[in-house]
Formats: sequence, structure tokens, C-alpha cells
Amino acid sequence: MKQSKMFIPTLREVPNDADSKSHQLLLKAGMIKQVASGVYSYLPIAKRVLNKIEAIVREEMEAIDGVEILMPALQPSELWSESGRWQSYGAELMRMTDRHGREFALGPTHEEIITSLVRDELKSYKKLPVTLFQIQNKFRDEKRPRFGLLRGREFIMKDAYSFHATEESLDETYQDMYDAYSRIFSRVNLNFRPVIADSGAIGGSHTHEFMALAEIGEDTICYTDESDYAANIEKAEVKYVPNVAHTEEKALEKVHTPGVKTAQQLADLLGKRLDEIVKSMIVKVDDQFIMFLIRGHHELNDVKVKSYFGTETVEMATDEEIQAILGATPGSLGPVGVEKIEIYADNSVQDLNNLSVGANETDYHYVNANLGRDFNVKAFDDFRFILEGEMAADGSGPIKFAEGIEVGQVFKLGTKYSESMNATFLNDQGRAEPMIMGCYGIGVSRTLSAVIEQHHDDKGIIWPTSITPFEIHIITANAKQDTQRELADQLYDAYKRDFEVLYDDRNERAGVKFNDADLIGVPVRIVVGKQAADEIVEVKNRRTGESFEVPVSELEEKIKAIYASFEH
Amino acid sequence: MKQSKMFIPTLREVPNDADSKSHQLLLKAGMIKQVASGVYSYLPIAKRVLNKIEAIVREEMEAIDGVEILMPALQPSELWSESGRWQSYGAELMRMTDRHGREFALGPTHEEIITSLVRDELKSYKKLPVTLFQIQNKFRDEKRPRFGLLRGREFIMKDAYSFHATEESLDETYQDMYDAYSRIFSRVNLNFRPVIADSGAIGGSHTHEFMALAEIGEDTICYTDESDYAANIEKAEVKYVPNVAHTEEKALEKVHTPGVKTAQQLADLLGKRLDEIVKSMIVKVDDQFIMFLIRGHHELNDVKVKSYFGTETVEMATDEEIQAILGATPGSLGPVGVEKIEIYADNSVQDLNNLSVGANETDYHYVNANLGRDFNVKAFDDFRFILEGEMAADGSGPIKFAEGIEVGQVFKLGTKYSESMNATFLNDQGRAEPMIMGCYGIGVSRTLSAVIEQHHDDKGIIWPTSITPFEIHIITANAKQDTQRELADQLYDAYKRDFEVLYDDRNERAGVKFNDADLIGVPVRIVVGKQAADEIVEVKNRRTGESFEVPVSELEEKIKAIYASFEH
Repeated sequence: MKQSKMFIPTLREVPNDADSKSHQLLLKAGMIKQVASGVYSYLPIAKRVLNKIEAIVREEMEAIDGVEILMPALQPSELWSESGRWQSYGAELMRMTDRHGREFALGPTHEEIITSLVRDELKSYKKLPVTLFQIQNKFRDEKRPRFGLLRGREFIMKDAYSFHATEESLDETYQDMYDAYSRIFSRVNLNFRPVIADSGAIGGSHTHEFMALAEIGEDTICYTDESDYAANIEKAEVKYVPNVAHTEEKALEKVHTPGVKTAQQLADLLGKRLDEIVKSMIVKVDDQFIMFLIRGHHELNDVKVKSYFGTETVEMATDEEIQAILGATPGSLGPVGVEKIEIYADNSVQDLNNLSVGANETDYHYVNANLGRDFNVKAFDDFRFILEGEMAADGSGPIKFAEGIEVGQVFKLGTKYSESMNATFLNDQGRAEPMIMGCYGIGVSRTLSAVIEQHHDDKGIIWPTSITPFEIHIITANAKQDTQRELADQLYDAYKRDFEVLYDDRNERAGVKFNDADLIGVPVRIVVGKQAADEIVEVKNRRTGESFEVPVSELEEKIKAIYASFEH
Repeated sequence: MKQSKMFIPTLREVPNDADSKSHQLLLKAGMIKQVASGVYSYLPIAKRVLNKIEAIVREEMEAIDGVEILMPALQPSELWSESGRWQSYGAELMRMTDRHGREFALGPTHEEIITSLVRDELKSYKKLPVTLFQIQNKFRDEKRPRFGLLRGREFIMKDAYSFHATEESLDETYQDMYDAYSRIFSRVNLNFRPVIADSGAIGGSHTHEFMALAEIGEDTICYTDESDYAANIEKAEVKYVPNVAHTEEKALEKVHTPGVKTAQQLADLLGKRLDEIVKSMIVKVDDQFIMFLIRGHHELNDVKVKSYFGTETVEMATDEEIQAILGATPGSLGPVGVEKIEIYADNSVQDLNNLSVGANETDYHYVNANLGRDFNVKAFDDFRFILEGEMAADGSGPIKFAEGIEVGQVFKLGTKYSESMNATFLNDQGRAEPMIMGCYGIGVSRTLSAVIEQHHDDKGIIWPTSITPFEIHIITANAKQDTQRELADQLYDAYKRDFEVLYDDRNERAGVKFNDADLIGVPVRIVVGKQAADEIVEVKNRRTGESFEVPVSELEEKIKAIYASFEH
């Protein structure tokens, strides 16, 4: 396409409110335009890339027998009431009322619509399994939209849903999806990890998130270089390897610890290391108060607590609640003499004896508290966040941390929606059973941003070849110079048959055009400049920055050679 | 694709509420599913066809330098207030409020968003013209959604907008769009006419609608077989060819006409033909009352009245208003003695003299009323609807009527939005001028329906080859029969490389499968049945209904021959 006909409003200045590298580059390269907070128009370059990402997604979905459909954004509240989410989804669900007073959600996801569709039309085990997907704008009223397309309020998703008669069938499709997602994110050249993730409030038993590694990422991934193990930090299991450092049991002693409120302060006062202290905390697990013991250098992981107790909510007890239970204040809590509530402890607490803990009395702590003698623990388990350097759950290690952007998720939903919405099928015995479901999402516009987070330099974007908006960028150094313009026209006409060509035919200064080209980031650039009369052009490899003077007769060969080099 | 993996919930019964042939067939062929009134999910077959229509639209838009973008559905009310449409659009505009209390429209169209985008980013005549398009779900809260996808509340549109420095440039793009639209509707095999249409309240000067001919159509098209003239009935000009039938002027006479309220009753009483009577009516044009004279067999055309007077609203005066002006009741109105308001007459009134008209007195009429002597007319012009059989405005004829579905519209917007929203550019003198705009729409989901309205028989849909969901439908008569299944598998594997193949591998009765195949309407069907052992299959041409027994060795040739026959 001729750049003079395109609409690529590049910017020289980084906008102040652009809070991530991809947000800055999307704006600077003239790819997006904000319409409202978290709401954007995709301009021509972005749309071309989105179309390519969508084509890859579509191809990989169809390769695993996914069938494309398109459900509406408008979703009647009645269906959301059936699943219970009309009440529970909260302020992130955008809602509207039609001219007849009927309430609708603007779909952030389509479990209700698809479950209602399939339950009405599919009655027999013979027609299962089926996998349906769509690519569509989704709506979520984020409280604080940020990072450009990474956390917007209207965004493009591929969502897929599968329906099964058996768990084995779900397992199979789940694995197909997992593999397809891996291929998709590899094909768009993302450095990503599929990580074990928390299934959280959505219900269901098993889920992986696909995380693109990036500094701006809002999630922490735990991985090792020795295996393909990776987990979201909330789900990263700590494999307990006993490392017992017991000393001779001493008499319990209450010590005056004026002003000591934290484990670090206690360690300092006692001349110990932080990891030698045991913190006690009281947590409200659904409606039950529980004391947890954790070593000083560890942090309680509420997702693990939820998962252990199979509960929905976990929150720290308030000062008032603690006062009511123990008559104590936070900062001086401990297990000694506690009988009103149950005590659980992280596995690694077992490694120590003669513990230093709070005395449930302001400014007093115990030293030499011992299990069995001074307090009891109902159970030890993995209740904490893993630390960098520990072993991974699969025995490999050491664990490293990285920040990641969640670009996809695969999820075994089980029967959560089919039970609440009565989506049953007749099994081979003729009995009705709830369908077993999976759901699978890819953030398409978020993937676009994640690719930019990973593929840029200080001059602009550097597109992976699989989703580059154009394959070749032809530029006249001086479009007013007839020889240059004629040669460039001729190259454009010749190459546009076999390549996707962007042709900068604008009457702009060469510097402006080169800057724009760096920003836009097409992999191969051909500059038709002063040597046009000698049929020599400059070819630039955007990835390496190398430039070559190439006779027109050898140009196509050179372009192909550069593209071939990208494949290694 | 294997039909067992698809989701094609065909129906045996026509649903009661399906109010058009396309609506019935979309439901029966398992292509759509209603989610709410006027809101549908597109199931796999429909989605495949939509993808093909969209690909054709995209290709033709790009061929005329249209550049694809994607704007959001969420549109801030502030922009709609700038254009004035937040107030004027009415109940069809779906509105919602976000968690921070900000108001949004769900876009039924994108003039405000695109004007705001272009005004912020494009400042110089050097960057004009530019044509941007998108394909997207639109929202319109129809009071009475009907005819399935033909009048829905969430529907797919291609909308395009062009921006120009000069009227000539707009004219050029308008013509390019007109031609591209003609190619698009030809390529999807619609029998359509581009018709001159009313530019109505949207403003602007010039517009064509692309009407697909269909009985269910809600618009009447006037066309002739002798030229390419076609117009929406509201805009079909009547070329006045004087056909004067004056007789000797007679003395004005008031006659008693008890009970006569209509032109037909008066004609009957006087022993005249309806076309010899002149009807008088009082119309409120903006705030002014005007009397119009029209011959008995004609109807006043309010669009022509609006256009003649350049006004926004035209409505019939109420009984009370008529009483206040003339002291008379409707049914007895006439021009004699009327001085308070101006009188206009349709051209054809000039052909008569000695007119029979109301006397502005209940149960009395005048006969032999004559222009100049008994009343005056401020002007004669074309104020009526054309009749079938008259000449067209271009001199060809006779005019025929047909019903049509509006599938597209091209529109010269002029400066309506650029002036109200201050979208200016600097011209070559450095002075700011409002951009001149065009807008262009295609109803993509409506086009799908219109194609079905035109391409079906009593058994189901008959897809045009350009947008058929599949090219070949392979069916096993009995999938449990090994020989049949093996041959069918083999044909599927062989053909799916070069053709889009739907393979009905289901364990259903042959009759069920044949009925479904007729409904779905793939152009070529291959039935693998009892002669599978002899490597002979049955090939059916869905369009002609012809069947052929074909040896597998000649099958590909036969398929190609049938496809070749479709091109004639």
C-alpha cells in the first residue's frame, strides 16, 4: 500500500500517560488512538497485525477441530441470573437497559450464552465432544484501565468452549488446546511460559495460564531452567525437604520486648536471623478464624489457604477480631496457650524448635516455645509463597522469578455452568448427566501488546515476520526526485505481487521517513536514494540494523536471504 | 470438516415466529440461534459464509485504497453531544453508564468517532483524501426487531468514511465506492439495484441505496427495463409531460355532496373518473401551513415536499388546525377563496380545468373551479409519488415497482459532521476549511439474509459459489457400512486439500442426512452409497437438482464441470 493513502499518525513525543513500552510504541507508531479511558481505535497498522494474529489463532483452532461461531456482545440478564453471575460479577460487568426496560450485560466472556446455546441444541452423548470458538470484542469495566491495550475496557479475545461426556474427553481437548496455544504463541514469536495457575472463583479444577515474559507483567512466574516446570507464584508448590535444625529443648521463657511489632524487630532484639523467628497470624477462612505459623522470612499464600480448606474467601482478621479472640494485638501473637482457635503451620516450621513467638500480650514474646509441650498444631502443610532459589515441585531447580503478561488461559470448568444452567445430555444408558466443560481464552489485542513489549529497540518496533504488518518497506529518500520516484514505483509494482509492501511515497524529509520506518518496524527496508540512477538501493535489516548497497538485479535474492536468516 | 465435529442444529419444523424466508431457513439450517429479540448467535455455517462475505468486502475496499481500521463499540456521549446526536438520535441509540457514571453509546454508526479521530491526527490538505473502513458489530435498539437478521438489534456492518479537501475528490471516491459496492453485490450473486435515495435527516446532498430485490423488502424501488435508472419510490422523480385535457371553461358551481368525504366518493357522485378530481390537503411544513392540490389518483410525497422547501419535518395538519385555518373539515377542502395560506399544486393538476374540488364547507363541493379565475397556485412542481407505468425521469420507461432490501448505502455527507465537530484542514493557502466527508455502509449480516431470500427452493438454501460455506458435501448413505465409510474417508482426505469439504460422517439415517444437506445447500453433493464397492458414487448438483452416477476415477472432473457450469 502507498503510505500516502494510509493513515499512520506517528508521534515524535512519547505521550505522558503512556505507562508501558508497548503503550508508548503503539501511540508513537500511529497504531492506536484512545477514545475513552481503556477504549481504543485500532488504526491501519494495528489492524493488519491483529488480522494476522487472528488468522494464526483461527488456523490453530481449526487444526484441533475447533469450529468458529460468533455470539453477540448483548447478553440478557436472565442468563446471567441462571449462573448466579448477574449478582456476583460486580462492577466490572458493563450493564445496559434496552428501550423496553430489559437488562443486558455487555459480554466480558460467554459461558452463559454458550451453555444456553448448547443445552438447547445438543441432547445426546453421540454429539459430544464439541469445541466452539469465536474472536470478538469483549467488555470489562476495569476500575483502573492501564498499559494501553494490556488492560483495557473493550478488547479483542478469542474464547473457546468445549463440551464433553467424560472427564477423559475433557482431558484430551484440554491437552489439544494447551498444545495449540503453545503453537500460537510460538508462531507470534512470544517468549512465553505455560504456568500452573489458580482456578480461583470461576470454579473448576485445573488451569494453566500462558504468560509472556515482560517487565511490565502484573504476574510473577516461578520457573526453572532445568525443566519445563512453571507456575504462577500463587500456585507454585513448595516441595518440603526437611532441614531440621533442632537444638536441645529449653524452658519456655517470657521476655519483655518493648516496641517490637515485626519479626525483623524481634530477630534484631534477640540477635537471631529472621528465618529463626516464627510469625503467627490470624486469618478468617470463610467464617472460621485460624492461626497460621510461618517462619519470619516467609509470606502466607492465601490461594494455598483457600485451596487447602476448599473455601471461597480468606482474609486477615481485623485488630478488633484478634482482640476479641486472644485479647491481644497484632505484633505480639503466638500459639502458646491458644485453645479457642485451631493452629496450622507451614511445613518449614517443623525444622525449628525452641521457637521465638509472640506471647499474646503487647510488648512480650516467648522464647523456647516447643511443639507438643507449649502448643499444638493441627496440621503442617504448604501455606506459603515459594522463594527464589528453592527447588521446584518437580524436583528441578533452582526456582527463578520472572514477571509475565497473561496472554492466554486454558481451564477445566467441569460442571459449574452445566449444573447451574441445567445443560444436560443423555448418556449411552439414556440417563441425563451435566455436560463437562472447558473454556479457553486468548487476549488477541493483549498479545499484540505483549509482542511489542518483547520486540522493540529504542527506535521502535521490530516485528516478528509471522505478524509483521508488511514484509517490505520501500522508501524514496526524496520523492520529488524523478529518478528515485520512478525506480521506487517500479520496485513497488514488481514486489507487491509477491510481498506485502508498504511504499512510503510521501513528500516528507528523508529523516522523517526513516524515523517513521524505524517506529513502524517492517523487517526489511529498501531505500531508493541517490544511487537510483545506477540502479543501486540500500537494504536495511531492521532486526540487526545492518545496511547493504544492493543492485536492483540482486534485490529479490537479498530480501529472501534476509528473511531466511530470520528463521534461525 | 467432519459434520460430527461441527455444530449444525438443523430443525425439521419451521419456527412459528420466523417471519421471512431467510429467517426460516437460517433457523432450519442451524445457522443462527436467537439470544434475545433481534440478537442472534451466528453458528458455524453462518460464520463461514459471513467470513467469505467479509473477505469479498475487504478485497473490494482495499482495491479502491480503503484502509481497514477498527473503532470501538463504546462511544463516549461527549462526542455525540458535539454532533448533536446524543439528543436527537432517540430511543434507537443504546446507551450505558460506566462504573464512574460516564455515559456511552453503543455504536450504531461511527461518524462521531471517525471525525474526532481524523480531526486530531490529520491537519493538511496534503494528507487528503483518505478512506477508512471497518467491519464490526453495530447496535440499534429497533422498536420492533423482525425478519431475523434483516432487522436486528446487534448486526454486522462494514462502514467506511472518506475525507476530502474538495467536492471533486469526494465525487471521485463516491463513484469508486458505488462501483465497488456494485462489484461486491454482484460477487455475492445478489439481484440488486443501486437506487437514488433520500438523504433525509442525516444531512448531505446525494445518496444511493443498494437494494436487493426480494418480496420481503420493506422499500419500494422504481425501475425500468430500458435503462439503469432506479430510485427509491420516495425519490423517483415524475417527469412532467403535459397532457392537457382542457375543456371550455364553465361557470363555478357549488353542489351539495352529502356524505362525500373522499375523492373516489366525489368522482362516483359526479360520474367522473378518479383522476378527474383534484384533492386538496393541508400540510404543516416546519411551522408553515400549506395547501397542496393533487389529482385524485395520486398521493402526496412528503419527501419531495421536504426537499422542495428544504425543511426537516412535514406532517398532515390536524382536524383542529384545519378548522382554525379554513373553518372546514377534511373531506371538503378546496382552493377556492383560500387566502390565508399558500397553495402549491402537483404538475399534473395543470392538465385539467373545470376542476371538482371541496368547498371548505361540509357536504359541499365546487365543480368547474378554474385556475386564475377562482383560485391561484403559487407554484406547480413534482409533489407526488410516481405510478407504475409512467415514464422514468431519464425518459425511459415504463416504470415498474419492486420490493427491495437495503443492503448498502453510499452517501455524500458534505460538511455536516466536520462543521459541528470542528474537523478542519489547512488548504494549500494555509487557511482552515472543514473537511468534506462521505460515508458508506454495507449490512454484512443483512446481505447474508438477502442472499438466502434470493437463493433457495422449498428444500433449503442454494448457495452461490462465491460465498458457499463449503464447496463439496460428502455424505455416507450408511456410515456404519465399512465399504462406504472407507471410500468416503478416502474421498474426504483426497479432496480436502483442494476444496472446502463438509463430510457428513454421522451415524444418522440417510434421509435425515439428505434433508440436512438440502437445507445447508452446498452446491455439489457426493453421496457414497451402495455402489461404493464398485467405486461409483452419486453426484448431485444442488442448483439444478440433477444427479449423476460417477466412477471415482472421473469424480474430480465431474465436480469441476459442475462448478464450471455455475459460471454461465
